[in-house]
Amino acid sequence: MATDDMDIFSSGNSVLLVNVIINGKKGSIYIDESGKIGDTCEGTNAGLKSEAEFIVDGNGAIATPGFTNTHTHAAMSLLRGNADDMHLQQWLSEKIWPLEAHLTGEDVYWGTKLACLEMIRSGTTAFNDMYFFMDQAAKAVKETGMKAVLCHGFIDFGDEEKRESEIKATEALYTHVKEMNSPRIKMATGPHAPYTVSKEGLSWCAEFSKENDVHLHIHLSETEAEVKGCIEQHGMKPAKLLEECGCLTDRTIAAHCCWLDDAECELLGRYGVSASHNPASNMKLATGRAMPFQQLRDAGANVTLGTDGCSSNNNLDILEEVKFAALLQKFFWKSDTVLPANEAFDMITSAGANALGFGSGKIEEGAPADIVLIRTDVPCNTPLYNPVSNIIYSCSSNAVDTVLCDGRVIMHEGIIPGEEEILKKASETAFDLVKRKEETG
Amino acid sequence: MATDDMDIFSSGNSVLLVNVIINGKKGSIYIDESGKIGDTCEGTNAGLKSEAEFIVDGNGAIATPGFTNTHTHAAMSLLRGNADDMHLQQWLSEKIWPLEAHLTGEDVYWGTKLACLEMIRSGTTAFNDMYFFMDQAAKAVKETGMKAVLCHGFIDFGDEEKRESEIKATEALYTHVKEMNSPRIKMATGPHAPYTVSKEGLSWCAEFSKENDVHLHIHLSETEAEVKGCIEQHGMKPAKLLEECGCLTDRTIAAHCCWLDDAECELLGRYGVSASHNPASNMKLATGRAMPFQQLRDAGANVTLGTDGCSSNNNLDILEEVKFAALLQKFFWKSDTVLPANEAFDMITSAGANALGFGSGKIEEGAPADIVLIRTDVPCNTPLYNPVSNIIYSCSSNAVDTVLCDGRVIMHEGIIPGEEEILKKASETAFDLVKRKEETG
Repeated sequence: MATDDMDIFSSGNSVLLVNVIINGKKGSIYIDESGKIGDTCEGTNAGLKSEAEFIVDGNGAIATPGFTNTHTHAAMSLLRGNADDMHLQQWLSEKIWPLEAHLTGEDVYWGTKLACLEMIRSGTTAFNDMYFFMDQAAKAVKETGMKAVLCHGFIDFGDEEKRESEIKATEALYTHVKEMNSPRIKMATGPHAPYTVSKEGLSWCAEFSKENDVHLHIHLSETEAEVKGCIEQHGMKPAKLLEECGCLTDRTIAAHCCWLDDAECELLGRYGVSASHNPASNMKLATGRAMPFQQLRDAGANVTLGTDGCSSNNNLDILEEVKFAALLQKFFWKSDTVLPANEAFDMITSAGANALGFGSGKIEEGAPADIVLIRTDVPCNTPLYNPVSNIIYSCSSNAVDTVLCDGRVIMHEGIIPGEEEILKKASETAFDLVKRKEETG
Repeated sequence: MATDDMDIFSSGNSVLLVNVIINGKKGSIYIDESGKIGDTCEGTNAGLKSEAEFIVDGNGAIATPGFTNTHTHAAMSLLRGNADDMHLQQWLSEKIWPLEAHLTGEDVYWGTKLACLEMIRSGTTAFNDMYFFMDQAAKAVKETGMKAVLCHGFIDFGDEEKRESEIKATEALYTHVKEMNSPRIKMATGPHAPYTVSKEGLSWCAEFSKENDVHLHIHLSETEAEVKGCIEQHGMKPAKLLEECGCLTDRTIAAHCCWLDDAECELLGRYGVSASHNPASNMKLATGRAMPFQQLRDAGANVTLGTDGCSSNNNLDILEEVKFAALLQKFFWKSDTVLPANEAFDMITSAGANALGFGSGKIEEGAPADIVLIRTDVPCNTPLYNPVSNIIYSCSSNAVDTVLCDGRVIMHEGIIPGEEEILKKASETAFDLVKRKEETG
């Protein structure tokens, strides 16, 4: 390194990554002061070397684009392992909702910080989050150096007063994020789901997203029961309802999508919607059907990957999740060739970045330097016939060595600045939350 | 540490583990020179401390019994990522079998060493392996300090000459392992599967296992096609055929078991057979059905967990596998409460150890000191409401810090002696194998 160890984590420096594997070849990547990839080349390129403020030696690591997690409830990291192996409705009504009723902004701040640690450790540079107290989530994301699209979970259950307060919360987040003026942080509208938000609420979110050119983040057809409920209530399937309310656009990210039929896949494709596959959560909660990946892809939808929140997963490890995706698709759809490694890799790189509007998700000149270095001197990358196969099927987050987001090093050789304090505070916050719930019943 | 750093990896020392969590409480574990757990107690116990040659500070880690992987083809680690996303038969006939035709004993030695590294890193202390050149596998296992049950994959396709040579290979392995005289290494008979071994071959293996009191390791009902084939050829389902040939005993470990019907589950339960669930492999190869875990368990079978080989998984990470098991069971059997965390934990500890006859798989006085220390100062264990839930659903091998097998430290704070050389040699061996195949076509 050019200067002392801690400075490498500061922003606004030029960085040269040397001795890394890019698309199968040894080479180096130059990142300019603006955080963009200036150049990639074979060898170490002495010219660039002299210009860079920091030189990071990859020791033969694979350089990949940063990974994107397109469906999270980050601060639910505080609930990890608090309740498992219960029936869904009992779990929500007896465990999750009573705890969430006691959530404070500070809880969300520390929970999101903890979530960011986990995500960075698995090579994630950007995520799409829906939760509450999102100004505090934004603060956490800004400090960790990641990118995120943040939305307030909008739930009105058809109640006008509730809807008004959700509209205010959404507008407040819009103003707050605008004032933060960070290229790494965006807001979205977050209509929770067709079964928790009225048509008026859905339409308002769609209109607000359109007017302000922001994303729309929604849960879609996670369970069979909600599809049946939608048909009973509205006389149509959920995707059709979303179309009617203006919620299907290329700024929309729809999570789960387990129970979409062919016509609904076609609808999502036609509007260029991004779908977020959440295999671990769907398996743990026994949703009974896997997202129709191939149908969505064939229809032209942008299929991406998300971990969902920690209470239904129970981690935010995108490298674990991508293996779940590639294997669940093969198993459920009874095809040993569906969702091959290269397509799974695209889900967490280019498709994810495109969904959130954070660049191309590729290592190429002019792209934001969101880059992950994956160690090759580890068992999961030995032998190294096919880096992409190893990343998808063999590696876990323990192979992730160094992470850059917008050109800034946010993890270096497994070290994330401030990790110890975050773990301590998040743990204290979590136990305090449970205590408050128990005290008030 | 009492003496210099490297000595901690030597065998035959007494060890005191302090500052660890045992069954939810902080305490310490004393391990005597014979490799057995002498005592566990709360606090650090100064009396024991003065006796121990080594003191290992767990820094608040969770101490769990070592994990057991009950179905592997360890040396297939050399084929990791060589071919994926192909149709099963094409993959076998064009990729796997042509490579295996060129395998040498040295390949198996380095492949098994690589596999042991991976397994130790995920907290595995014992495994059940079927492959070729098993004298070389035994050498590798002995050197790494792990425990294993090893069998030669016995395949005769009904051919008498082939059967005679498989019998000789099995007998030679028996003699070899007996001469090694290691309490950590056992042999088993390894009739590959009901569809690759004649009734005569199955019966010979059963008889040999009975006479010599050794295990029998077999693939059972992985695909629907083999079940149909068995009915066509033998007029009965595979488990019934195994019963007729004497292959169902409490020394039997049957891998996969995806397509067993209720009567077959009952049969495995009646004989006290151990079943090895291999969820990741079954999902990747799209077998179409998940092992009927609950039926097998209710019938009294001993249900355990295995990763299968690296070319169908593509790693040997038992902590990843156990999450696949707990989630696949919930998803396939449409129940959010089946295979809860504590039962999944039993699969990889007590049930696994019982299957292979390597002690109780519990941390208790007199048990072999097969112990794993799992870090708690990491995101996946924050917060720590429920250690077992976190281990099953949240942790991956990156939380595994220290591993002891029979009282000997085989990994300490992430360090395994000789790892660098093993990775180098295994990589060279793998590429050399592929080159030999390509040269001879």
